[in-house]
Amino acid sequence: MICVLRSFLIMEQNLIFTNDVERTIERLTDGGDHNMTVWIADVNTARLLPSPDHIITIDDGDENKTLTTVTHVWDEMERMGATRQTVVINLGGGMVTDLGGWAAATFKRGVRFINVPTTLLGAVDAAVGGKTGINYGGLKNEIGSFAPASDVIISTRFFDTLPVQEMKSGFAEVLKHAMLSDRSMFLQLLDHDFSAPIQHDELLEQLRHSVQVKVNIVARDPHEQGERKALNLGHTVGHAFESLAMKRSTPIPHGYAVAWGLVTEAILSHIKLNFPSEDVHRLGHFVRDNYRDFPFTCDDYDELLALMRHDKKSRNGEITCTLLNTVGDYRIEQTVSSDDVTAALDILRDLLGV
Amino acid sequence: MICVLRSFLIMEQNLIFTNDVERTIERLTDGGDHNMTVWIADVNTARLLPSPDHIITIDDGDENKTLTTVTHVWDEMERMGATRQTVVINLGGGMVTDLGGWAAATFKRGVRFINVPTTLLGAVDAAVGGKTGINYGGLKNEIGSFAPASDVIISTRFFDTLPVQEMKSGFAEVLKHAMLSDRSMFLQLLDHDFSAPIQHDELLEQLRHSVQVKVNIVARDPHEQGERKALNLGHTVGHAFESLAMKRSTPIPHGYAVAWGLVTEAILSHIKLNFPSEDVHRLGHFVRDNYRDFPFTCDDYDELLALMRHDKKSRNGEITCTLLNTVGDYRIEQTVSSDDVTAALDILRDLLGV
Repeated sequence: MICVLRSFLIMEQNLIFTNDVERTIERLTDGGDHNMTVWIADVNTARLLPSPDHIITIDDGDENKTLTTVTHVWDEMERMGATRQTVVINLGGGMVTDLGGWAAATFKRGVRFINVPTTLLGAVDAAVGGKTGINYGGLKNEIGSFAPASDVIISTRFFDTLPVQEMKSGFAEVLKHAMLSDRSMFLQLLDHDFSAPIQHDELLEQLRHSVQVKVNIVARDPHEQGERKALNLGHTVGHAFESLAMKRSTPIPHGYAVAWGLVTEAILSHIKLNFPSEDVHRLGHFVRDNYRDFPFTCDDYDELLALMRHDKKSRNGEITCTLLNTVGDYRIEQTVSSDDVTAALDILRDLLGV
Repeated sequence: MICVLRSFLIMEQNLIFTNDVERTIERLTDGGDHNMTVWIADVNTARLLPSPDHIITIDDGDENKTLTTVTHVWDEMERMGATRQTVVINLGGGMVTDLGGWAAATFKRGVRFINVPTTLLGAVDAAVGGKTGINYGGLKNEIGSFAPASDVIISTRFFDTLPVQEMKSGFAEVLKHAMLSDRSMFLQLLDHDFSAPIQHDELLEQLRHSVQVKVNIVARDPHEQGERKALNLGHTVGHAFESLAMKRSTPIPHGYAVAWGLVTEAILSHIKLNFPSEDVHRLGHFVRDNYRDFPFTCDDYDELLALMRHDKKSRNGEITCTLLNTVGDYRIEQTVSSDDVTAALDILRDLLGV
């Protein structure tokens, strides 16, 4: 005898693109049912806005994205008298929105939270789409929940003081979204000049376009059971570079590894799906000019291949990537052989001049 | 500029009523995509089924429903090599399904889990509906998630060895569900004889009816924003009795407190909504005959009232309950005055003879 409890949950996440952050937060938290607003920020981002009544400050850095930090947040929320009607505002980069989002999503089985990403990477990736959690047992994002912020306020106003390396790191995800969706945006982005002052209106419009790509994909697959894997473009190879650099104790920013991953997977797309070589070259030159080279030789190929085979998303020890027919036309879960990858890495070294 | 990410999540929970537990589990975990089945049980329930390959045994009792126990479960899952494709089976009472469910719901942002409740209370309440979590900071169920088991296997086969006190405790929730839905079932339940051997087929059918009541309500309000509060019937007053007993260091089973809460709230329903006094008396006599009396006097009224005002679900210090027009016709969020409650407690003492 079987009966089925079927409930339909509609999860909505409002994305608000504005540089008037204070007034937007005021509007979002004005009136309504909530009894208290609790801010979560790290030691740096806590200074970005006038100090609110209730703020929980945590240490920055991925090494503090731990259970110990979450219990500190829970304890502080208790101490402040937070209830189910409390609203949490996460002000910071991906570490703060990941950890603060999970703390909010689990406090009394979940209170509403708003993300205010202060980095480009946070704005186009971490703060949007509902992945929250912490590192655990030496593994990244090992414990967590799918729990969307009710609102994400996306602004470029925090970026003027962002180190150029962090801008570049986030920009790789912006590039990725363009490669998944729109060739004219892809070409526009390849004209970007990181040494020029930030054009806030133009960048905010590019962010809107970029985030919309992620949103459209996540809306169709919130729990990453299929199509969301498209967002993995550049990451199968990128994670391998990131891990290799980590092992050598010369860590590189996530976005730099993703940038090389994007070039490598564009090359693989050319080999497997005839992705236009013209676009491979444009992308390769942009990455060569803007992302610090990471010296590697053919002696590293075996280790890179092993790392790709052990990727969290791979199965049966095969290397799988998202590949492109053309910019905007992707195919998820494409299997590539070791020979394909080796050939692609040769071409990559040639393009990047390493 | 605002764009809305709207995703529709369909959460399904299969409820399977059977006493052939082993074969049902085999069918549910046979083939498919999963790589491993991990069982979570407490020191007593681990003995109820032949020992599986991967089992995590935790200490029993609500005092172990803690973060320390959850981290033990996460660590063991890591050690066993659990992945996103792992299936978790929670075998036990509410403590095991609450904690094991939350451990599974947060491991790698969530793996599939199956609940096999071994107590009557677990079968009709804790294992169904998606509330998972742990006690934290001295507060019950303070940290957790709404995360439904993919399947709940509801069986009476574990109840033959269940202490009668635990049967009675769970039965109070069965009574509650009947009061929210169906007078003929309500009257049938009031004929129950706890001293007779368990009639498995009849009880399984009563469970099916009872769980369906909860399922229908939860499906319409999975995150407890409105109608789900109907399930709070008996609990505003019941929790006050439970807390009072706790304070006196003479704790009583949850269901006993709920049984007295049900009678008290039936009396309040009579006072406020003209609920038939005939049904108040039937219920009162059943509770008097089957649930150990808890001596209290009019000297305890002030403390009971204070506890009701501080109930997690109350607002603005008012006492709110779910009340009934008749059996099956409920009204949520009804405010009652201290005078109403005092009058009801007088009548309760009279009915129970305390």
